[in-house]
Amino acid sequence: MQTSADDLQIQTQSQLGEINDALESGTFKQVRRMLNGLQPAEIAHLIESSPPPSRRVLWRLVDNEGEVLQELSDEVQAQFLRRMDAAEVAEVTEGLDTDDVADILQQLPDRVIREVLAAMSARDRLRVESVLSYDEETAGGMMNTDTITVRPRLTLDVVLRYLRRHDEIPASTDNLIVVNRKDQFVGLLPLSKLLTSPPTITVREIMVTDIDPIDADLADNEVANLFERNDWVSAPVVDKDGKLLGRITIDDVVDVIREDADHSLMSLAGLDEEEDTFAPVSLATPRRAIWLGINLITAIVAAAVIGTFQETIEKVVALAVLMPIVASMGGVAGNQTLTVVIRGIALGQIGRNNIGWLLSREFWISVINGLLMALAMGIMVALWLNDMNIALIIGAAMIINLLVAALAGTLIPITLKSLSIDPALAGGVVLTTVTDVVGFFAFLGLATYFYS
Amino acid sequence: MQTSADDLQIQTQSQLGEINDALESGTFKQVRRMLNGLQPAEIAHLIESSPPPSRRVLWRLVDNEGEVLQELSDEVQAQFLRRMDAAEVAEVTEGLDTDDVADILQQLPDRVIREVLAAMSARDRLRVESVLSYDEETAGGMMNTDTITVRPRLTLDVVLRYLRRHDEIPASTDNLIVVNRKDQFVGLLPLSKLLTSPPTITVREIMVTDIDPIDADLADNEVANLFERNDWVSAPVVDKDGKLLGRITIDDVVDVIREDADHSLMSLAGLDEEEDTFAPVSLATPRRAIWLGINLITAIVAAAVIGTFQETIEKVVALAVLMPIVASMGGVAGNQTLTVVIRGIALGQIGRNNIGWLLSREFWISVINGLLMALAMGIMVALWLNDMNIALIIGAAMIINLLVAALAGTLIPITLKSLSIDPALAGGVVLTTVTDVVGFFAFLGLATYFYS
Repeated sequence: MQTSADDLQIQTQSQLGEINDALESGTFKQVRRMLNGLQPAEIAHLIESSPPPSRRVLWRLVDNEGEVLQELSDEVQAQFLRRMDAAEVAEVTEGLDTDDVADILQQLPDRVIREVLAAMSARDRLRVESVLSYDEETAGGMMNTDTITVRPRLTLDVVLRYLRRHDEIPASTDNLIVVNRKDQFVGLLPLSKLLTSPPTITVREIMVTDIDPIDADLADNEVANLFERNDWVSAPVVDKDGKLLGRITIDDVVDVIREDADHSLMSLAGLDEEEDTFAPVSLATPRRAIWLGINLITAIVAAAVIGTFQETIEKVVALAVLMPIVASMGGVAGNQTLTVVIRGIALGQIGRNNIGWLLSREFWISVINGLLMALAMGIMVALWLNDMNIALIIGAAMIINLLVAALAGTLIPITLKSLSIDPALAGGVVLTTVTDVVGFFAFLGLATYFYS
Repeated sequence: MQTSADDLQIQTQSQLGEINDALESGTFKQVRRMLNGLQPAEIAHLIESSPPPSRRVLWRLVDNEGEVLQELSDEVQAQFLRRMDAAEVAEVTEGLDTDDVADILQQLPDRVIREVLAAMSARDRLRVESVLSYDEETAGGMMNTDTITVRPRLTLDVVLRYLRRHDEIPASTDNLIVVNRKDQFVGLLPLSKLLTSPPTITVREIMVTDIDPIDADLADNEVANLFERNDWVSAPVVDKDGKLLGRITIDDVVDVIREDADHSLMSLAGLDEEEDTFAPVSLATPRRAIWLGINLITAIVAAAVIGTFQETIEKVVALAVLMPIVASMGGVAGNQTLTVVIRGIALGQIGRNNIGWLLSREFWISVINGLLMALAMGIMVALWLNDMNIALIIGAAMIINLLVAALAGTLIPITLKSLSIDPALAGGVVLTTVTDVVGFFAFLGLATYFYS
């Protein structure tokens, strides 16, 4: 059976429908059979697509809990782990890849981590500890210890016989790793070369030596960049002395790319990229309240600006009607610039060498579009209110606010970045405050000057 | 040499600095040597990180133009292709993967595509035409025709000897594809199994048959889902009759994942995910003008609502000062809900089976946070203006607007999606219009009722 377009989306929803029906009528057996016929990642997707009450039931019906657990996002993982004791965690995670076990353990309090490690076999414990000793968001935290290594002096024939002694080769193995006697990285032996070369030559003769191994301290998004630029499937990880520690595979890199790309989107709304779509009210409410509180303060700042012009508004009440337009257009224009710059920073494109060009481009876009919008708005106001003065004032205020929006949209994220503040998280709030304050101030200020 | 943390970002900027200096002093030779020592993807990244004037110079200094061209984003590709004639395009794209050639050709007008195809060798032309016959955003448009196929009855020993006749195996080959006499897909022979099994057994005995091939019409984001859920490195693509057409590799899937994830971010600001960070003023200005124009209309709608309450504002001018706060808080709350729902839709998590739960959760979050914000704002207004009436009015209006924002943030993207309108592109505009209109209407309406 082939998978045809849009099948997957429909499939998820029809599976969810089936599960809901079954859970309501209490026929768990059928759901259990259906669930356990799916890939762990598919089960994880169904669990993440379910509200908390169904989640708990689904979880009890899953057989291979460890595999499913490691496919879940951090936040959902934590929800299930909270109800397990150390022995259960140790049991469930047995047989998982080292990096996945480490990811899961990092959701737990330190005391529980120690208990889980104590419940593991000595060999597994050592491996997991070596990954845990690195930050979760570095190459060391992403790596797996399941490497197959060979020595340079072996002939390919020996390597082939050595491989045949394995029952299986770890997933996503496209290279064997060549190491010296001190276990230091020397080069890579691609399986494709192993398969196309004469069996009598040695590893040294055909190994690839022009690929640098990854330092265990490299940040995960830089690892993703290296994989993307070089089209790697796997890559070796080494410590400061060049000693092989493990390898990173493309499936873990894909997760980093997905999270990195989601980060800007979610942060601009004050949310975390790991945010659970179906987080319960008790979790989601306080998080959102913080964001609303911050924005309440900035809105009050903008209102205070209006407050200083009360007398002018009393004289010409039409100003109150029109002032949100000026603020809103500045916000929209600034937000476009901000989004382009935030993505450019995330992609590593923007820095001191091109910021000048970018700033001047945004300036000229604003000049042209500012004039255009000012003209449109001016004509509309002149016809609507039959008042040329207000038409000129709103036109001028709009041009001023669009220019400020262009500068703010470019400079705010770059300044935040240089202060090591996440531009995606703080950028939107700061920008809107600037465009609101400048919008109200320019429009009402010009009006006050004119009408006083 | 190992690559350590933050090296890559700094490296890009220092390379750009070097290039700028060299271009200013006219020492192209050095830049050419530096450029051509880099990977094609690194050169593409430098070009995309440069403003248009430096881009043109860099492009002239690049030796392997085809490789670099296919790493560039669609929009930047198009900028260079516009200056080439059909013969040049055919020359530059020679030797590239079929899917990459097809991607590049799709940037060109139909007339030029025909000319380029005519300039190709018959074999290349047939291959590219087979990919071009599928939409760019389907499995058929992503696939490559460089498959290695074997028959089920062969012994592994024969397969190994057959492989040794190849100079090299295509990149990211983790499986050989098993086909029957009619070239129909039968199964996969993982290289890992080929390497660990005795040479005397046949392909049929160890081939994997429980993986479904991908239908050529499957949408590219569904292909990405399949790769992510199954941790594939490559997968076979077949036509309606099960005939093998080619295969998709993980490096092309990573591009789709990156673009898909960028899509929501950029669309919410009215931008395209392929938007060139350094697009010239002449390209960027008209695009942004359209978005500003749409938002100008919605801002005027909101202003018109205020306009109907002019008399009330004339009586109590403090209303004009406070009204943007109510509208703005509705916008912020609605935007959080909208972002969570848009991402949930993009990930395929949200549908008819869980929308009810989601709606009720958002409702309760809004009730709680609405009361909280209303209380904070009410107390502040009571103290600031010493006016309990306005304090009560603004509190009530804020609760109303936060509730409407929760409903709108959930229902707008789902409704747009069911109408086949991109929720990420249209959602933000519609939402802000709703929260502005409701915010002004609730606050000024309640005030009018109270003060008249």
